[in-house]
This record gives sequence, structure tokens and C-alpha cells, in this order.
Amino acid sequence: METRAPAREPQQRRSRATRQRLLEAAVECLAETGVAASTLGAVAERAGVSRGAAQHHFGTREHLLTEALRYMSGARLEELRRCGARLPEGPGRIEAAVTMLIDTYNGTEFDAAVQLWAAAAGDPALREHVLPLEDHVGREAHRVAVELLGADESRPGVRETVQATLDLARGLGLADLLTDDSARRGRIVRQWARMVAKELG
Amino acid sequence: METRAPAREPQQRRSRATRQRLLEAAVECLAETGVAASTLGAVAERAGVSRGAAQHHFGTREHLLTEALRYMSGARLEELRRCGARLPEGPGRIEAAVTMLIDTYNGTEFDAAVQLWAAAAGDPALREHVLPLEDHVGREAHRVAVELLGADESRPGVRETVQATLDLARGLGLADLLTDDSARRGRIVRQWARMVAKELG
Repeated sequence: METRAPAREPQQRRSRATRQRLLEAAVECLAETGVAASTLGAVAERAGVSRGAAQHHFGTREHLLTEALRYMSGARLEELRRCGARLPEGPGRIEAAVTMLIDTYNGTEFDAAVQLWAAAAGDPALREHVLPLEDHVGREAHRVAVELLGADESRPGVRETVQATLDLARGLGLADLLTDDSARRGRIVRQWARMVAKELG
Repeated sequence: METRAPAREPQQRRSRATRQRLLEAAVECLAETGVAASTLGAVAERAGVSRGAAQHHFGTREHLLTEALRYMSGARLEELRRCGARLPEGPGRIEAAVTMLIDTYNGTEFDAAVQLWAAAAGDPALREHVLPLEDHVGREAHRVAVELLGADESRPGVRETVQATLDLARGLGLADLLTDDSARRGRIVRQWARMVAKELG
């Protein structure tokens, strides 16, 4: 039975929509301008809401920026899992899975994460926010990668092969930060997929 | 025949020493505090020289920071090549070479490069300095990696395997930026070395 007054629903919906717009604006702002320029005010302006609304929803810039990456990474990994479930079995599966995994580390969200990592290296307060986020996203990404690759981690070397795939993805994401590296990346992904397929048997 | 006046030599030597101290201080400053805080003045102070000396040697901050990374990367790759030339032939060679290559992407110099990449993403003027540097260092690193691994790039997949090793190294460097990732990295390096050894035959 619904106990909330129906009149509150539109307000809650508006509040959720504002929160969502702030999270999306934060990731874009971070990727394009870095941590120092991604203030609550700058993100609020990009989202088309007041600075007060940003402060109400997230309190501090550190909280907004890390929540934004947590939310966006979660959504992206969920999408990846859904697409992965539709991958056909057979010889092309590993290459398709490796391509999908590595593509996840290219684009606005990864660029935003690099800005957060770089700033956290010299800012202990931000680092305290970023470390648990990294831990959480890293574990989720590993779980999705195991699913997509159909990897049996009880076999020797398999866990490290999955981890190496995600580390390679980060390295390729970095190589794409300043220039379009997609042609070279495509060749490396194909070779990597061949090596992973041999390893996973 | 020596044509320069002997009296000028100590001055030239001092000038070279100042330049060297500035380059080393720039890389440390960049790694610890990021681009925004690595001004000519801050780097000069760390090097124990005047801001005027820094300006005399490098002109702008962008020039100092990119020259510092060019110099340090060059020195590191030269050292890697010397150590690589002493690697014993035999079954352990690939693992030793992969370990040496990947270790090069961990530490102050790589951390400084991440700061430069992150800042260049939102700063077109800095980007113009960083792109030719990346191109140069990337080509040199590839050449050293081919030598160390004894890779025959005329065989299919070998070039991409060498490139993937360097991209993996960058990804592992990023994973080590905020925490000590050495234990996990060691396991991944051993597995990757096994996969590379199979591939290079």
C-alpha cells in the first residue's frame, strides 16, 4: 500500500532528475576541465541548476565528483553486463568481449577518472574519497570481465590474465587521452584477444 | 684542438649543473604537486637556484616541464638499454625483460607524466608541447622494448605484442599512482611474460 502523499511524488521526481543532471554534468566537467575547475558552482551551472541545489544534494565538491564517477561507472558496467549476456558463444566471443571491455575505458568517464587520480596524487583529502571508489569500481569491473570472458579463475594464470586485460584497458585509455588512438588500439585488441583465447582455452 | 678559453669551462660546467638540477626538480615537483603548482618559481626553489636562472634556461614553465620529462625518459631508456644488453639468453630472459620494461613505468617519472597528460587534456597550449614529447618517448620506448625482448617484428602479431606490453605497463603505472600495487603487479608481470614468451616463440 502506498503511504506517501501523492502530492510529494512530482517533487521527488524533480529532485532525482536534478541529482542525475548534476552527476552527468560533474563527469563532463571533470573530463574537460580537471578537478580544480570542477567546483560545485561550475558543475551546477553546466547542469542548469543552482549552486545551492548542488550543495544540498552533495555537500562538497569531493563528494559530488566521486559520487558522479561511482554512478557513471556503475551504469556503464551494468550496460556492459547486459550486452555481454547477449554475446554469441563460439570462436569470436573472446574478441567481442575484449573489445567491449576495452572500449569501456575510452571516453568521457575514463578521462574524468584520470583527472581525479591525478589530482588525488597530491591531495590527501581527495585521495581518501578516491581510494574506496577505486576499490569498489575495480572489483565490479573484474567481476563483469570474468563473466564476459567466461573465465574459470580456478585455473592457474586465468585470474592474472583477466586483471591484465583491465590494466591494458587503462593503459590504452591513457594513450587515447590526448589523441585519437583507435586504429592502433584496434590492432592491439585483436592480438590481445588471440592471446587471451589461447590462455582461457 | 680546444679553441674555447679555459676560463669559461667552470662557468659552463656550473650552467650544466644548474640545468640538470632544474630538470630533476621539475619532474619531482610535477609528480608531487601537479602542473598548476609546478611554476618556474616553485621548481627553481626546489632546485635551490633563482627563478631568473630557471627562466634563463627554459623560458616558460611548459618548456621546462616537457624538457624535464624528455630528459628523464631519455636517461631512463638509456639505462634500460644498458641493463638489457647484459640480460642472459635463455628461458628467463623474457620475464626479466618484461619486468624491467614494466618497472620503468612505475615511479616519479611516470607519476609526473600522468600529471602532464591530465593537465594537457584541458590546456591546448600545453597539449602542443606534450604531443611531440609523447610521440618521441613512445617511439624510443618501443625501440628499446623490441631490443630487450629480442622481438622479430616481421612476424605477424609480434609488433602488437610489444605495443601491448608498453600499454599494459602504462595501465599498471596508473594502478600504482595512489597505492602500492607491487604485489599484484608482480603476479600479472609473470603471467604476461609467459604469454609473451609463447607469442615470440
